[in-house]
Amino acid sequence: MEKDLRFIELFDLYSGLLTEKQKEIFSAYYIYDLSLSEIAEPQGRTRQSVHEIIKNTCDKLLQYEKTLKLKSKNDKLYDVALSTSDKNASDKIKELIGR
Amino acid sequence: MEKDLRFIELFDLYSGLLTEKQKEIFSAYYIYDLSLSEIAEPQGRTRQSVHEIIKNTCDKLLQYEKTLKLKSKNDKLYDVALSTSDKNASDKIKELIGR
Repeated sequence: MEKDLRFIELFDLYSGLLTEKQKEIFSAYYIYDLSLSEIAEPQGRTRQSVHEIIKNTCDKLLQYEKTLKLKSKNDKLYDVALSTSDKNASDKIKELIGR
Repeated sequence: MEKDLRFIELFDLYSGLLTEKQKEIFSAYYIYDLSLSEIAEPQGRTRQSVHEIIKNTCDKLLQYEKTLKLKSKNDKLYDVALSTSDKNASDKIKELIGR
């Protein structure tokens, strides 16, 4: 499974909607960059079950983005922040979208 | 049950995360302004069960706001849109937050 780093940005936006197990395993794989085996062994899981949890979590993140479009809106707000000559407004927008 | 109109704004933001039943009954009560009885009767439900579905839906909306803070962020973006002298940026922000 190739690590698609787009998911980290979606995770930043939507992790509050995930279960503790999903957050823990997603973070271990995408943020702490552990392998499937490194995650599976200490938890007494199989690599396959860890793979499935990660895949389901990524599917959920994509589904949340399809529904709420936060990343897409933040991208457009970021464009506004970059193109405005009002530095104060630009800084506030960047702060609000965490970029 | 008094109708607290703040929920309509949360519903606009988070309805995509609700079930079809929650969306239908919330809309009937808050948007089409029907009474509990008017919603309950044609569906063969009791007023009490409709009341509970609405209450659970409102609790969910509050929980989503606590987690994702979209309304709070949109309020702050709206302040930026009102205070900037860059009309183009202001219009784009308002369009993105739907105000």
